[in-house]
Order: sequence, then C-alpha cells, then structure tokens
Amino acid sequence: MTPTLAQRLGAEALGTAFLLAAIVGSGIMAAKLAGGNGALALLCNTLPTGAILVVLILALGPVSGAHFNPAVTLAFLIRRDLGGRDAAFYVASQTLGGIVGVLVAHAMFDLPLWQVSQTARTGAGQWLAEGIATFGLVLTIFCCLRGARDAIPYAVGLYITSAYWFTASTSFANPAVTIARSLSDTFAGIAPAGILGFMAAQFVGAALGLLAANALFPAKSELSA
Amino acid sequence: MTPTLAQRLGAEALGTAFLLAAIVGSGIMAAKLAGGNGALALLCNTLPTGAILVVLILALGPVSGAHFNPAVTLAFLIRRDLGGRDAAFYVASQTLGGIVGVLVAHAMFDLPLWQVSQTARTGAGQWLAEGIATFGLVLTIFCCLRGARDAIPYAVGLYITSAYWFTASTSFANPAVTIARSLSDTFAGIAPAGILGFMAAQFVGAALGLLAANALFPAKSELSA
Amino acid sequence: MTPTLAQRLGAEALGTAFLLAAIVGSGIMAAKLAGGNGALALLCNTLPTGAILVVLILALGPVSGAHFNPAVTLAFLIRRDLGGRDAAFYVASQTLGGIVGVLVAHAMFDLPLWQVSQTARTGAGQWLAEGIATFGLVLTIFCCLRGARDAIPYAVGLYITSAYWFTASTSFANPAVTIARSLSDTFAGIAPAGILGFMAAQFVGAALGLLAANALFPAKSELSA
Amino acid sequence: MTPTLAQRLGAEALGTAFLLAAIVGSGIMAAKLAGGNGALALLCNTLPTGAILVVLILALGPVSGAHFNPAVTLAFLIRRDLGGRDAAFYVASQTLGGIVGVLVAHAMFDLPLWQVSQTARTGAGQWLAEGIATFGLVLTIFCCLRGARDAIPYAVGLYITSAYWFTASTSFANPAVTIARSLSDTFAGIAPAGILGFMAAQFVGAALGLLAANALFPAKSELSA
Repeated sequence: MTPTLAQRLGAEALGTAFLLAAIVGSGIMAAKLAGGNGALALLCNTLPTGAILVVLILALGPVSGAHFNPAVTLAFLIRRDLGGRDAAFYVASQTLGGIVGVLVAHAMFDLPLWQVSQTARTGAGQWLAEGIATFGLVLTIFCCLRGARDAIPYAVGLYITSAYWFTASTSFANPAVTIARSLSDTFAGIAPAGILGFMAAQFVGAALGLLAANALFPAKSELSA
Repeated sequence: MTPTLAQRLGAEALGTAFLLAAIVGSGIMAAKLAGGNGALALLCNTLPTGAILVVLILALGPVSGAHFNPAVTLAFLIRRDLGGRDAAFYVASQTLGGIVGVLVAHAMFDLPLWQVSQTARTGAGQWLAEGIATFGLVLTIFCCLRGARDAIPYAVGLYITSAYWFTASTSFANPAVTIARSLSDTFAGIAPAGILGFMAAQFVGAALGLLAANALFPAKSELSA
Repeated sequence: MTPTLAQRLGAEALGTAFLLAAIVGSGIMAAKLAGGNGALALLCNTLPTGAILVVLILALGPVSGAHFNPAVTLAFLIRRDLGGRDAAFYVASQTLGGIVGVLVAHAMFDLPLWQVSQTARTGAGQWLAEGIATFGLVLTIFCCLRGARDAIPYAVGLYITSAYWFTASTSFANPAVTIARSLSDTFAGIAPAGILGFMAAQFVGAALGLLAANALFPAKSELSA
Repeated sequence: MTPTLAQRLGAEALGTAFLLAAIVGSGIMAAKLAGGNGALALLCNTLPTGAILVVLILALGPVSGAHFNPAVTLAFLIRRDLGGRDAAFYVASQTLGGIVGVLVAHAMFDLPLWQVSQTARTGAGQWLAEGIATFGLVLTIFCCLRGARDAIPYAVGLYITSAYWFTASTSFANPAVTIARSLSDTFAGIAPAGILGFMAAQFVGAALGLLAANALFPAKSELSA
C-alpha cells in the first residue's frame, strides 16, 4: 500500500527533526568535550551527522523518499516526480521539523530553547562551497537512482561525511537545515544574515547537479523515486 | 529449523554480554589512553560500541532477533510478536548477560570485579535525552522491519554511533545496559540512583517509537521478526 | 542503453575533480583545525577521502567504470577491456578533472588558485610505498571483479582509508592524483620533483597487482568491467 | 572453477602479508604523528586494520576463504571443512606471509628490516583478553556462516575494530599475527616471551567460539566455507 500524504509529511518532518537534533546536539557535545581542538570537534560533529543520515534514509525512505531537504525536493519537482502542491508541503514539513529538532537538542542539553546564532558565514568562498556541496549531493542522489539505488542511504551519509571536510562551509547543503541552524547559537549555528546567500547557492547547486546527472546518463535509464 | 528457546536465550545473554563488555571495556581503554580529552575518549568509546552492535546483530539476529534490550523486547511484546513468558525470559537473559559482560571487562583490565558507579546521571535533560534516544532506536528498528530489513544491523549500529553524541546522556537507550553499567565505576558507569529515571524514560520512548513507526506505515505492511 | 564516450569521459573528469577537491579540501580544513597534531590532521584527511571514493564509484561506476586513476585505466587496457584510444581519453579526462578539482578546493578556501607544492616526497621508502599502495589497489579491484563485484565501491574506499596510514607515502596510488596534488602547496601537496618517481612506482605496482589477481583466480572466472 | 591449492595458499600468504603490513605500518605512522596521545595513536591503528580486513576478505575470500589466521583455520579443521594437510599448509602460508608483511612495513618506513619487539604483553588479564577476543571472532564467523554470510567481511572488520578497544590486549586474536608482530619493535610489537601465552589463549578461545556457535544454531543449518 502507498503511504498517505500525511504519512509522507510526517516522515519528512520527523526525519528532518532527527537530522537537526543530530547536527546541533552532536555539535554541542563535541564542542563541550573537545578541549578547544577544532578538528576533533568537527570530527565528532561529522560522524554522528553522516551516521544518522544513513539511518533516517533507510528507515523513512520507503515512506516519503527521505528528502529532508528542500533542495532535493526541488530537484524531484523539476523532474515532475512530485507535484507542486506536494513539494510545498514537503518543504514546509522539513522546515518545521528542522526547527523542532533544534529545540529538542537545546532541551536535552539544558540550554535556552530559542536562540539566534552569532556565527557569521558569508563570502564568495562559502557560497561556492555551498554550491559545490549541494551540486555533489544532488548529483550523488540522481546518479545512484539510475544504478546503485539500494546504496543511496550509504552514499548520502558518506557524501555528507566527506563534504563536512572538503567544503569551506562544512556543507550545510540544505535550506531547511540552514534555517534551523540559524536558531542555535552553538557550534553548528549560522547567523541569520548568512541564510539567503547559502540558500541561493544551494538551490543553484541542486539544479546544476540534476542537470549533470541527466547529462551523464542515457535518457530514460532512470527510475522515479 | 527454528532455534529452541534455550538457544534464543543463550543468544540474548551472550550478545548482551559482548555488548556490555564492549561498552565498558572500550570506555576503560579510551579513558586510560585519551590523556584527559573527553571528546577523544567518547569517540573511542562510540566507535567500538557501534561496531560491535552491527556484528552482534548480524551474527545472532537469526537466532533470537538480537534484541539485547528490554525496551526492544517490550515493543515486540506489544506487537504480540513475542509472548509474555518468552519476553520475561528474554529480559532476564539480557540483564544477566549484561552483568556478566561488565565483570568480564573488569577482569580483562585487572580491575575489581564488583564495583558500583559514582557517576550521577539525572535530571530533566538526561531523561529527555534517554526518551529521545530510545524513541529513535525503536523507530529505526520498526521502520526498517517494513523496508530495509537486511540493513537493520547497520542501521542500529549507526544509530547508536550517532546517538552517543547527539543526546545529552550519551544514549544508554537500554534498561539492561543501564543496570549493568551501574556496576562499573569507570568511564561508562551510572550511579544506581539514576537507574529508575533512565529506565522510565527508555520504556516511554520505546512505546512512543513503536506508535510512531506504526503511524508512518500503512497497516499490514510489516513482517514479524 | 550504453553511455556514450562523451558521457564516460565526463564521468571520469567529474569524478576525479570531486576526488581531488575532497583530498585537497579536506587536507586544508584538517590542517587548519588540527592544532598541529599530525595524526588528527591525517585522520581528518583520510575519512573524507575514503568516503568520497565510495560515493563516486557508486554514483559514476555505471557510466564509466569509475576509474578516476590512470593506473587503473592502464590495467583495463592491458586486459583489453578498453581500447588504446579510449584509454588515452580516460587518462586525459582524469588528469584535467583532477587539476580542476584542486582549483575548486583552493577557490572554496579563498586561497590562490595556482600553487606549486614545496613538500618533498621522494626516496626508496616512498617509492616502495607507492608501489605497494597501487599494487594493493589494483589487486583489490581485479579480485573483487571476480567475486564481490557489488562491493567494489566499499572495498576501494576502505582500501584507501587503510593505505593512507599503512604506507609511508600516505598512498597517492594514482598518477592523476599525483600530478594534481603537485599544484597545491597545502597539506596534501607533493613537490613536482617527486612526481616521476611516484608515477613510475604506481604503474609498476598496478601491473604487478593485475598479474597477482590473474594468478590467484582460475582463468575466465572474471567479468569484464 | 575451483582454485588450486597453490592459488589458495598464495591468497592466504598475500592476504596475511597485507594484514600485517597494515597493522604494523599504520602503527608506525600513527605513533609517529600522534604527538604522544595514546588514544589517537590506537584509533589511527584501529581504523586501518579494520578497513583492510574488510577489503582482504572481500577480495580473497572467494579464493581461499580468507582465514589469514591459524585459529580460524583450526576451527575449519575441527569442522572437517579443511583436511589436516591443507590446514598445515594454510598455517605455514599465513605465518610466512605475516612475517613478509612486517618486513615490507619496515622497508616502507625506512626502518631496520629485522627487529625484535621489547613490548611485554603478558599476565592473566591479557590472556583472558586474547581468549575473549578470539572467542568472539570465531563466534562471529561461524554464526554469520549460517545467516549473514555475505556480510562476513564487514562483520570481521567491525569486530576487530571494536575488539582493539574493548579487550585489554588490543585483540591480536591471531597466532600468525602474534608471531609476526614479535618481529617489530614498533607500536604494534609484542616481546617474544609473550607469544606462547597469547597463542594458547587464542586457540582455546577459538575452540570455545566454535562450540558456542554450534550450540546456538540448530544442527545442519550451516553451509561449509
């Protein structure tokens, strides 16, 4: 039986909530324990993030496709795998879920629930990094959809594990994640002034990633998701 | 051929013993070698724990289902995949096995066998963390049972790898583990006064996780385990 | 449908570009954050490299075979799985892609685009290390082609993850990677004077690795790639 | 076609050589770079060891079964999956290969080829640790042979990744590895006086692990390897 729209939106909201709880929560824990060593802190933020992505896509992929990311939803919309109305609901669920995830992380660590990040993330290098990060993410997903379909959960988790380190921005690569992380003045935060630049770069990267995946594969070799 | 009850209980006891030996043993080794860096110590406790979970579920899953966790057994009981008598035996085997695992870890490291932890773990943030941790664990298992069934060993190992960092409590998420860890005054310990609060949060989280998994999937889309 | 040559060359160029962006980019990030600890820096360079290899081979393997490496292309040429003209185009695409990847990494991190490495890497130990590293890589690929074919992305990623540490040269194992890394005066660089020695060792290692794989398996037990 | 005995022995020797090169080589690299932090050094020795095990079993398992370990060969001998003569040849190939691997590691790092370790590893805790480590390894292999057969490479690699940390001896769990590591006065070494105690514990652990695996599964549920 096909999941209902409510089930699909529930999966998107719940999955994005867990993703953000993992990103923000592990960032708090890592920064608290790392004794000021930035590489160790980022490593202990990276591994939990990559790991939870694998888990969430395995668990919730059969329900909603496990986008957890408006840039990915945009790509499915462009491909017409998803209608405009459903895509809008997906994005709303992801954004709402992401914010809830941040609040839950704050609550677990006994921090003020509502915060606004002071961490400036801006500039051409950062925007290029976000563009590349999202390009690679969407390329990975839409190439794997034509071949290594069952490996997508692992591919996405490993991609983000890598991109946290090879992009100058630590690879947000996700507009809902970007918005939600602006509400945490902790390790993973981004000051609100940086949101628009990041989001623009992410959507451009996603569109180009879809184009690249389409160019590399013969037409009609794909399956819808 | 179906395993006998004795074989299943043996698998639960042996698996939980190895799980606890891994948690407590790697905690001792990590704390001894980390030179006081808390992030490095927790990382070197996390990776062995996540890894052994994958191994134990791969190896023993075909025998007993590889619960190693009374909260998971409770969820299978609620689903009536397991009768009340068998569930009680499972929980007893897990608890006994877990305690043996702690003793074995102490013996390997030439420490006193019987210890009582002095590490206070309590408070609303910790309980919320344990609730979330167990919610996510049970959600993962019962979602994957409907889809990515063969990936459950990896999903569970990666989930705990992540949850060690994103929950404020480092994710015990398991009443048998909680009891056993109270008997080790080492890195992984929990003072006995904290057991009840943790266990209550874990059982509530497990029940809600099962509810959530049921809500996300169409009825009858699942296979029993 | 079979991919066109243009699609295959595009996949080789794009994949090698991402590989180099990951190697050089994560090296920059790791060195910047590691506070002078060499092991932590190399670890945070290793994990992103191994992870992106898995991803790229999963994503692009169905298009081009995902060589990303002239030494691997040479082995396929020796086996006559690839004609001489195609092999030459593969190598050119890999080399060009690799250089672009380095430039992108520099751009993301706001560094001068064109650089020349000052890091001397030479001597018998280093050459032996590169020979062993490439021998093992080619052995892994051509053994897995006869058996664990679907696991090749993971096998290659894990092999490089290991070889970064067990070879004295941190395992370049790839002539295109060697050339491209000479153009980055950062953590991952190699001074141009060291290129020829590394490349010679890599090609010798690759040829011996193919011989060893052929010797270990009965003739005709393999599938072409 | 079935591999010849020569091919099988070649696979055992080559695989054990790579395993030892990885253990000893990564130990040298890790100790050199870790700045005196023992946890970081052991972590950077653990991950390459676990990773190469996955790779070697994937690559060479179809040829020889990928034992690389006399204790594992003993278990197959007890099960009569392997005759006495073949088992003896296997053990000789493993031991010889392991020693070659150590020499290669020394050569890559420009160290004296022949060394004798000064690192005392002895005492009841260490022996118990080796017994437990090998028990768990053999249990893992022979349980997975009945169920998660295709996952054995990952199960073994992850098991050793975990056991490096949870056993007090860092889990040699392999008589050929033990002998070979006595020939390296580096991070991974063991003084020759400790060899016999380790080997005795390993063989006892292996035999008990096979017994436990047999007890947990219904008779005849297994496949030979």
